[in-house]
Amino acid sequence: MPIEVWTWPTPNAHKVHIALEELGLPYTVVPVNIGAGEQFRPDFLAITPNHRIPAIVDPEGPGGQRLTLFESGAILVYLAEKTGRLLPADPAGRYRALEWLMFQMGGVGPMFGQYGHFHAYAPEDVPYAKARYAKEVQRLHRVLDKRLSEAAFLAGAEYSIADIATFPWVRNPERRKIDLSEFPHVRRWHDAIAARPAVQRGVHVLAANQRVGGMTDQERENLFGNTQFQAR
Amino acid sequence: MPIEVWTWPTPNAHKVHIALEELGLPYTVVPVNIGAGEQFRPDFLAITPNHRIPAIVDPEGPGGQRLTLFESGAILVYLAEKTGRLLPADPAGRYRALEWLMFQMGGVGPMFGQYGHFHAYAPEDVPYAKARYAKEVQRLHRVLDKRLSEAAFLAGAEYSIADIATFPWVRNPERRKIDLSEFPHVRRWHDAIAARPAVQRGVHVLAANQRVGGMTDQERENLFGNTQFQAR
Repeated sequence: MPIEVWTWPTPNAHKVHIALEELGLPYTVVPVNIGAGEQFRPDFLAITPNHRIPAIVDPEGPGGQRLTLFESGAILVYLAEKTGRLLPADPAGRYRALEWLMFQMGGVGPMFGQYGHFHAYAPEDVPYAKARYAKEVQRLHRVLDKRLSEAAFLAGAEYSIADIATFPWVRNPERRKIDLSEFPHVRRWHDAIAARPAVQRGVHVLAANQRVGGMTDQERENLFGNTQFQAR
Repeated sequence: MPIEVWTWPTPNAHKVHIALEELGLPYTVVPVNIGAGEQFRPDFLAITPNHRIPAIVDPEGPGGQRLTLFESGAILVYLAEKTGRLLPADPAGRYRALEWLMFQMGGVGPMFGQYGHFHAYAPEDVPYAKARYAKEVQRLHRVLDKRLSEAAFLAGAEYSIADIATFPWVRNPERRKIDLSEFPHVRRWHDAIAARPAVQRGVHVLAANQRVGGMTDQERENLFGNTQFQAR
């Protein structure tokens, strides 16, 4: 039975779409329109108390039992271990992959996310925060560039879930005023991953639903307003 | 041979200290005074290009080979798997632990960290950011409280690295103007963990070096200034 992916086209969701495409696992898409507030629906809150996409339901999880799982990083580890792919088989390589997966989860994702909030979405201009996160986005690209000067992929010679986690946050660099020509190793890595057919399929899942242009007040409320602080 | 822990008394480092104490693994402490800029020393950059504590060196890593590892979340998974403890043995429970570990890595840690930056460290007053992160800290406590209303610990019945990752960010709630009486399940969980002798030993590692009071300009520069954007 296919895996259900509760999702919407955002970088964290793209990770899961790409992994499923790379692994050739059958899946169905359950759109959760986060601008319209669908993340507060009881059926979604039953899967994740954090009301954040992506989340999955695997009817054939461990021991053949239904497994629900949220947090993109945990979903990637699960899918890799379910199939025995996208994580290096040697233990040292596996921990290198987990290290860079955590670097994405704790650094790249949250900090690029704050950049997006203050540069694109916040209802007021906050110069200090804009500068803070712009610098941090630059710094994190430099750390990635250093690592990718030593290895083809983040975990080493092998493409892994660490790359799949990071790529959706590095693509569209112009959104963060990043010029990849300043980070040549990141650019080489980005271009190699962007050329993979599974990646191209993954980033097109729900592409027609991708938000473009300015945010409506209702979208801003659902994404950043008090609604989320009241959901139970 | 003992594991080297490159560290300084911060919540992310406390995770590693607590895990090592819980597991009874021998370790040595290598202090990295991040206020004094020691994170930019070449010997530390050789272990982590991200110049962030904690990082470890295990002289007896996988296959008996030396392993360096950074990112507290990856270190916790490594230590749990090295010993076969602090992660549920059943696969579904293990993924539940990884899910909440990722929730800490991607949510609790970065967002509580931004709260600290804007409420305690930033050189200017930024009301919008203060309010943004104060609300998010409240929201994340509510998500934890909901989870802990269903289960004794984050992964389920068993204490795991998910709890060890989260506890150091929930302790000292007054620093984030959190009243744990509003989150009774979090309080019950907090108090149970705080009472563990290994936890008490873990949070005292380097306690004498814990920064108190206002930051000096030099500390602020090393932690948030341009120095970090130039380190290679």
